[in-house]
Amino acid sequence: MQSYEDSLKSLKQAINSYEKIEKIALTECLDRILAIDIIALNDHPQFPTSAMDGYAIKFDDQDENLKIIGEVPAGKFPNFKLNNKECVKTFTGSLMSEGSDTLIPIEKVQVENNTLIIKEKVSKGFAVRKVGESYKKGEILLKKGTKINYSEIALLAELGYFHISVFIKPIIGVLSSGSEIKDLGESLDNPAQIRSSNHVAIANMAKKLHCDVRIFPLLNDDKEQTKTAIKQALNSCDILITTGGVSMGDFDFLKQAIKDYQIIIDKVNIKPGKHIKIAKCKEKFIFALPGFPYSAMVMFNLYVRELLNTWLLQEKDYIFKAFLNTDYKKKSPHLEFVACNIEFKDGKIYANLKGKKEGSSAIINNLNNKAALMIANDDIKENDLVDILLMP
Amino acid sequence: MQSYEDSLKSLKQAINSYEKIEKIALTECLDRILAIDIIALNDHPQFPTSAMDGYAIKFDDQDENLKIIGEVPAGKFPNFKLNNKECVKTFTGSLMSEGSDTLIPIEKVQVENNTLIIKEKVSKGFAVRKVGESYKKGEILLKKGTKINYSEIALLAELGYFHISVFIKPIIGVLSSGSEIKDLGESLDNPAQIRSSNHVAIANMAKKLHCDVRIFPLLNDDKEQTKTAIKQALNSCDILITTGGVSMGDFDFLKQAIKDYQIIIDKVNIKPGKHIKIAKCKEKFIFALPGFPYSAMVMFNLYVRELLNTWLLQEKDYIFKAFLNTDYKKKSPHLEFVACNIEFKDGKIYANLKGKKEGSSAIINNLNNKAALMIANDDIKENDLVDILLMP
Repeated sequence: MQSYEDSLKSLKQAINSYEKIEKIALTECLDRILAIDIIALNDHPQFPTSAMDGYAIKFDDQDENLKIIGEVPAGKFPNFKLNNKECVKTFTGSLMSEGSDTLIPIEKVQVENNTLIIKEKVSKGFAVRKVGESYKKGEILLKKGTKINYSEIALLAELGYFHISVFIKPIIGVLSSGSEIKDLGESLDNPAQIRSSNHVAIANMAKKLHCDVRIFPLLNDDKEQTKTAIKQALNSCDILITTGGVSMGDFDFLKQAIKDYQIIIDKVNIKPGKHIKIAKCKEKFIFALPGFPYSAMVMFNLYVRELLNTWLLQEKDYIFKAFLNTDYKKKSPHLEFVACNIEFKDGKIYANLKGKKEGSSAIINNLNNKAALMIANDDIKENDLVDILLMP
Repeated sequence: MQSYEDSLKSLKQAINSYEKIEKIALTECLDRILAIDIIALNDHPQFPTSAMDGYAIKFDDQDENLKIIGEVPAGKFPNFKLNNKECVKTFTGSLMSEGSDTLIPIEKVQVENNTLIIKEKVSKGFAVRKVGESYKKGEILLKKGTKINYSEIALLAELGYFHISVFIKPIIGVLSSGSEIKDLGESLDNPAQIRSSNHVAIANMAKKLHCDVRIFPLLNDDKEQTKTAIKQALNSCDILITTGGVSMGDFDFLKQAIKDYQIIIDKVNIKPGKHIKIAKCKEKFIFALPGFPYSAMVMFNLYVRELLNTWLLQEKDYIFKAFLNTDYKKKSPHLEFVACNIEFKDGKIYANLKGKKEGSSAIINNLNNKAALMIANDDIKENDLVDILLMP
């Protein structure tokens, strides 16, 4: 059986670059991924600008009483030129007048008629934002692949952008299988049936990872129906996720149907999820995940996320090290991905196995707040550093 | 001037409980906040269930050859009762047949005609999910205030819920002021004008924190217009955020207009943002934030987030400790909130000041990837533990 490391290599080799780009309004850009570099077209600020309310002065004039020759409200271009012993009333965000080099704040002065008396001196250039202080012309301000948060939106607004090039969200289709599962809102015929949760769980993990989703109708355990459903689903998505039907049961038709495509990965030496299969159909990917919701979510995080990160140029900042706060005894011959929670304490990151359940269906216990996976290749002692993959 | 700590107390005392609840489809619940407790109505699983594909057997029969008396596909209620030396073919997710106590996986058996030969024995109860293994009847599965992620959606689906009670997103209105600012898409009349970025930045931070937003038309520096705009805006939001117009300039009309309401906080001994004002109008809140985008975002994180957390029952899990990876010299007599980035390395959390700019307008440098605020009450030495507030 292939190792986890080798399986990631196989997957990466199969990944084509993702070039689907659209333009959307800046006001709709939150959490979208920038598809081009953003370059500063001008210095910012373009002119020396006041950072406080006060008076634009010559630094060397601070021992003198100064004549107030006018004022420059923010947003007005200043048309004063300071001679010695002159000053201009200037507001936060106003441009500095020609000949001035320092802003004396309103708290440090006294005004009598038209004369400014400086009560407390400031350093040269005080409260003056220099040309290019925020950024300089030609600087790359945002790189292709940047996830757009509020500060990126603020910058794009300031730069005057409105229609932004972002990656089109990859479309993830979800096809859940199993004759025992019923859909949302359907009633159960007998207590052996269960309600499908996989499809909505996977769809929502995909949404968290910047994808659009299509949930396809549930599949019964039927060979022909399975083949047709996969074929049709592939028309409407970039990545097809199936759940169930990949282990060793007589009804595991997905395992068979996926053989019609170019198999990239077939079983990996990991727990959970060793029966995973990954195939390609032209540019599209099929991930055949296990039927247990918890296992399916773990597999999504290990493999589908890898594909999405590569496509959308995202860094794998969800992988880091933590201190395990208990002993762990390995339970299988496979590389194990163990549910844990991440805690921050006194500057350290801890992995906590408290409340985690063996039953691989225990999705809520295993994937609640700040859920992560600890990678266990061997028994682990309390306070050992372990490798962690944070769940989305 | 009030201290930061006292200002938080003043704010908390003023916060009423938030009881706005709506029902929405499970498929739309991602990142919404649950407004009721969710209680298990039944044990799960309700009956002993197979966790693998194989044969339901009596544990004590493992040395015998067993007669296969039938099969139970997943989703069918079993109507077999095992006598000694009998077994039932059973699939992942199928209920165990009466009289069986152990599942022998398909990998460990050999079948000849209708007879099962066990090649490798398993422990008692192997691969049988016990009644209530995932959860027991009456257990509180999700608490009011839970942020709904994919695992909560999976659980709610499994439980048969479809229409979910969540908190209505609080509506945050944004009213940015300043005669020098122009809106998205407007052209600048002269280089002293700037494009508003505050309003979209704040609106998007609010979206990240589970709010709906209204961006109101930009305000000129005009006394009467300011008063009217605040009054009208309050009709369409739960929380009104204003930016600009609160410091000491002649055009700071917001500072004056807010005096018509019940002032809760007026200036706090912090940097940035000491001019902040918070007022109440009946159940609604007004936050008058500084005009510098970076300062406004910091204030939002310190104060508006505090209100939202209380309303929506969220834990303050964004506050923790980190090791500062450089010396820091305090720059003002105020409590300082210093822009930093958070890094994870070898199980430790580091606060990094690299690339941070003094200019309080440098929103993109100061609030990029994994941005946080370090609280500085004094000079700090390299490797000291510091208090951190992660930005949304």
